[in-house]
Amino acid sequence: MRILLTITYDGTNFNGYQVQIEKRTVQEELERALKLVYGIEIKTVCAGRTDSGVHALSQKVHYDVDSEIDINKIPKAVNFYLPEDVRVIRAEIVSNTFNSRYSAKEKTYLYRIYTDEIEIPLKERYAVHFQYPLNYELMNEAVEVIKGEKDFKCFLASGSSVKNTVRNVSDIKIIRKDNDVEFYVTGNGFLYKMVRNIVGTLLDVGQGKKTIEEIQEAINKGDRSLVGKTMPGKGLFLFDIKYN
Amino acid sequence: MRILLTITYDGTNFNGYQVQIEKRTVQEELERALKLVYGIEIKTVCAGRTDSGVHALSQKVHYDVDSEIDINKIPKAVNFYLPEDVRVIRAEIVSNTFNSRYSAKEKTYLYRIYTDEIEIPLKERYAVHFQYPLNYELMNEAVEVIKGEKDFKCFLASGSSVKNTVRNVSDIKIIRKDNDVEFYVTGNGFLYKMVRNIVGTLLDVGQGKKTIEEIQEAINKGDRSLVGKTMPGKGLFLFDIKYN
Repeated sequence: MRILLTITYDGTNFNGYQVQIEKRTVQEELERALKLVYGIEIKTVCAGRTDSGVHALSQKVHYDVDSEIDINKIPKAVNFYLPEDVRVIRAEIVSNTFNSRYSAKEKTYLYRIYTDEIEIPLKERYAVHFQYPLNYELMNEAVEVIKGEKDFKCFLASGSSVKNTVRNVSDIKIIRKDNDVEFYVTGNGFLYKMVRNIVGTLLDVGQGKKTIEEIQEAINKGDRSLVGKTMPGKGLFLFDIKYN
Repeated sequence: MRILLTITYDGTNFNGYQVQIEKRTVQEELERALKLVYGIEIKTVCAGRTDSGVHALSQKVHYDVDSEIDINKIPKAVNFYLPEDVRVIRAEIVSNTFNSRYSAKEKTYLYRIYTDEIEIPLKERYAVHFQYPLNYELMNEAVEVIKGEKDFKCFLASGSSVKNTVRNVSDIKIIRKDNDVEFYVTGNGFLYKMVRNIVGTLLDVGQGKKTIEEIQEAINKGDRSLVGKTMPGKGLFLFDIKYN
């Protein structure tokens, strides 16, 4: 039987989703809780491995198990053993061909900044302070250049060994609420640190540090050195995952 | 020269505003930073002493000092020495008769709860999870009974020795956004833990655990045992302070 969990976590005190030796990870905490519920080792597969400090409003995780525990009782049972910074929102039975990662049609990430003159401690945990004036018209022009199905090699963090760097970024929305700015980035998949590099690049354009033409050139050449810097993990949220 | 600061803090790791021996407080951190800026001991007076775990979006603090430091440079200078969970937003020179506490005409506190079925780690730091269905019509009826200038003795936490328990609560607003509920409570002054007791009482009414008549009786009798329980500090924010 294959089970799909929807989970949410505060990534502040995690070294990302994926298990790493001697580091606290979401996967390790989740699999430890699942073992206590089922009495056997459970291996989980997540839709999108989040990095250190990155949060999830809706992460999807699947695992296989033979068990007669009522599926509706799984969230409470697992949450009982989980630490306070991870929670199972929902559990459902899916077909054996369903895969939380490979069946995902589209993922949306949210990146949050705030533009108050001074750092606000109550915003600092879940957003990044950005104090330079931004031209939103230019940023939205850059969005049009970035969006679409293309080779996103220039937004791939250095050190990654992935071969196929073509992805389809179907939408990027910039939403302002008073001093808070939210970037919603939706695509069929993302390269390592790609969302944080796209946001860093949009902020460079918004400040006038880079032109639309330079972004186009960076994409054409696949040159990481021509785009903006990687934004910090604490402003990034895995927001939503869509399946067929 | 009297200076008024507007400050904001994340109360999570503070034992409230007011100095206490061997406990971490906002006042202690602020006065330590002011001493480093001015080179002398500074005593501060705040508008509303917040309790352990309570946050402030806008707290007002005044102090007297003889100094030639440009007032516009004070926020950056003080923030340089403050820990990350407190920030000075603004500094201004006020008259010597102005008092951050006694000149305050009106204060607004915000209390936040969220009603998602499961605890959400990303909401847990700044709101309280409340999982029982609420009747908002009944809560708004109770608001009308609580509002006004009257003796609020029933909402005073036990152990307080204050004599005059008459206050004017000019407004209480309940605002819902999806699963998040915000209570804005405005008045000319508040008794110890009064806002948290009012919110606890409104939630009792919303759940049908207490009737409007019982709240009226509790106010008439000034009986603490007849109203709801004190809500946790982490959902409370000193939101705004108005002066003449």
